[in-house]
Amino acid sequence: MLPEKSLAWGRSKSCIRELAAYGSARKSEIGEDKVFDFSLGNPSIPAPPCVTEALRELLSADPVQLHGYTPAGGLPSLRRAVAEDLNRRWGTAFTPELIYVTCGAAAGLAACMHGLLLPGEEALTFAPFFPEYTVFAEGAGGVLKAVPPTESFQPDFAAFEALLTEKTKLVLLNTPNNPSGVVLSAESLARLGELLRAAEQRYGHTVYLISDEPYRELVYDGAAVPCVPDFYDNTIVCYSFSKSLSLPGERIGYLAVSPRMADREDVYASLAGAARACGYVNAPSLMQRVVEKCLGQTADISVYKANRDLLYNGLRERGFRCVYPDGAFYLFVKSPEPDAKAFSERAKKHELLLVPSDDFGLPGYVRVAYCVSGEMIRRSMPAFEALAGEYGLLP
Amino acid sequence: MLPEKSLAWGRSKSCIRELAAYGSARKSEIGEDKVFDFSLGNPSIPAPPCVTEALRELLSADPVQLHGYTPAGGLPSLRRAVAEDLNRRWGTAFTPELIYVTCGAAAGLAACMHGLLLPGEEALTFAPFFPEYTVFAEGAGGVLKAVPPTESFQPDFAAFEALLTEKTKLVLLNTPNNPSGVVLSAESLARLGELLRAAEQRYGHTVYLISDEPYRELVYDGAAVPCVPDFYDNTIVCYSFSKSLSLPGERIGYLAVSPRMADREDVYASLAGAARACGYVNAPSLMQRVVEKCLGQTADISVYKANRDLLYNGLRERGFRCVYPDGAFYLFVKSPEPDAKAFSERAKKHELLLVPSDDFGLPGYVRVAYCVSGEMIRRSMPAFEALAGEYGLLP
Repeated sequence: MLPEKSLAWGRSKSCIRELAAYGSARKSEIGEDKVFDFSLGNPSIPAPPCVTEALRELLSADPVQLHGYTPAGGLPSLRRAVAEDLNRRWGTAFTPELIYVTCGAAAGLAACMHGLLLPGEEALTFAPFFPEYTVFAEGAGGVLKAVPPTESFQPDFAAFEALLTEKTKLVLLNTPNNPSGVVLSAESLARLGELLRAAEQRYGHTVYLISDEPYRELVYDGAAVPCVPDFYDNTIVCYSFSKSLSLPGERIGYLAVSPRMADREDVYASLAGAARACGYVNAPSLMQRVVEKCLGQTADISVYKANRDLLYNGLRERGFRCVYPDGAFYLFVKSPEPDAKAFSERAKKHELLLVPSDDFGLPGYVRVAYCVSGEMIRRSMPAFEALAGEYGLLP
Repeated sequence: MLPEKSLAWGRSKSCIRELAAYGSARKSEIGEDKVFDFSLGNPSIPAPPCVTEALRELLSADPVQLHGYTPAGGLPSLRRAVAEDLNRRWGTAFTPELIYVTCGAAAGLAACMHGLLLPGEEALTFAPFFPEYTVFAEGAGGVLKAVPPTESFQPDFAAFEALLTEKTKLVLLNTPNNPSGVVLSAESLARLGELLRAAEQRYGHTVYLISDEPYRELVYDGAAVPCVPDFYDNTIVCYSFSKSLSLPGERIGYLAVSPRMADREDVYASLAGAARACGYVNAPSLMQRVVEKCLGQTADISVYKANRDLLYNGLRERGFRCVYPDGAFYLFVKSPEPDAKAFSERAKKHELLLVPSDDFGLPGYVRVAYCVSGEMIRRSMPAFEALAGEYGLLP
């Protein structure tokens, strides 16, 4: 007599968290330095100094103001600063009224699902994808369907067209992608925009595009994430400071509704109403002030770039097939046997904790999170080499 | 084609926020000290020194840990501390596994509604009640019904019995109450427990009791809030540190599922699953650590007690009929004309901002929030006197 889905979501352990829990237990058993834990997407580099400085400075502010309620959509000054920051980097025309400050990207995505989907309507996304997308869509009474990738991990648009029907209310993309690290190309975004405009014409209703961009600043070698609202007017950008400022536990991010969306005011209201019904009052007030002071800054992401190079080159040299990641802090590695869970189990024997990709909607891979120390990556190479040897991958 | 209710909730301005906005505008017009703004329930006293001390201390901790993800239900150490704190004050047997740390009471209530209600099931509450209860219940697909109060603002149990049907899945109470300041008596709670047990027998299903207690520590003259789980086994306590520690913007509180609830593990899982689907990842990590260090402490609530006495006595002396508040920081005043909105409008002419009670599910009253300076209360007395004079109330 309890809601079946809530019960299931509360009971189910994500396979990522299970592997991480195994890792913790294993570390106490055989020693911290003997386990190569690539399971969690938890930023490994500290928040930049501006965060601690901002906190220290704010401690001398009036505590009644500092810790008081803010407007539901966020402090006016923060909303203005975010709009200006986006406009500066993208040449867009966001106004503060289009920015809704959220308790992280998850809260923003849940607000989009609840605020846009009618019961039974469909959200399309691109595999591989973050498993919580399913929970957010179904929690809102909708259905999530996933489009497979091409060889280069761009969307397979033939498959996309087959799934894009009258029921499609929104499309959700994630760039750079968790778990593959791939950045959606301008070509892919242009094609996506075309197809969505055609679908709107064909079905006579708006199809919203949600661009989930928590890894936007985590790109390497001069790669850049294209400005998604440039390619399609009915876009909502979902952002989090979790990765760029290494603040994942603080829950702070924002939604930005495109100024070129025709019904932007209604959509903004619906997102706000959905957030309200989910029990959001305002994003944490102290952290709103911190991120306002740190806007445009990032943690030292050169660490992730060095890790990526180490890991990508190291695994390739040992015969593994890897998707080349332009961003985020994940390497997506082809499982040398069809069952990625079996491969992950075998990797465990070498104390390598790699997440099988089944929960990401695409079987046959493992996710290797490289938000770890470079030193651990170096030490893990003999284990990867032994694992490769078992599969006869070594060149 | 957007969800109707989300759109409506996003568009509707609460009459409290509207009055507060009017107040801000009016203050810039005629001067801060000329407007007697009793509209908002925003704590007016600073967080206790332990909060700033805890923050200062935490700033020297490892930032990766400090700002990192925590388990979804909260830091194990905080959950243990909360369970021990409750057990110490109540003699109960809460365990850490029954504590779920939330982004404030609103998040906790939304999780309860989403995690307990099936579509069309009913939640009963007691008028007057916090208007967001309706939004949370309807957001979860349920229906909220309100039981009127007796003369002494305890529940009218005859009316309650009439509303308690097979459809009733949960009952939601708020003690001390916003907007009346009334504490539910042990007698009322005992009677409520009896009726709920009888209903469970009669209908063959569990009826959950949710005790919303953000004002638990804000009681005066030795009044105490009875331990609600003592009166009924199937109870979930919903708490927030917003008022006790003056941290309303930081969004930190908890749910505590009674150790005497038979299906407590399933209920806990369902609340956790519902929170997950609403986009909650974990309560803000820094604030989890702060409240752990401040558990059992409160802001200086003697200020509220002095305000209550000033306001209650001042208004009574001027002929107003007031509900005597044992707790919270609200005075509920009978409107001298049937239409409380008209009364609130007339009060505005005297620069008195009083919230009409219609949105609280009980017409004919105004809510006077006394989380303001005592000095403003003193300065407001001539205005109340003039207003009383207009209605011929002066003795």
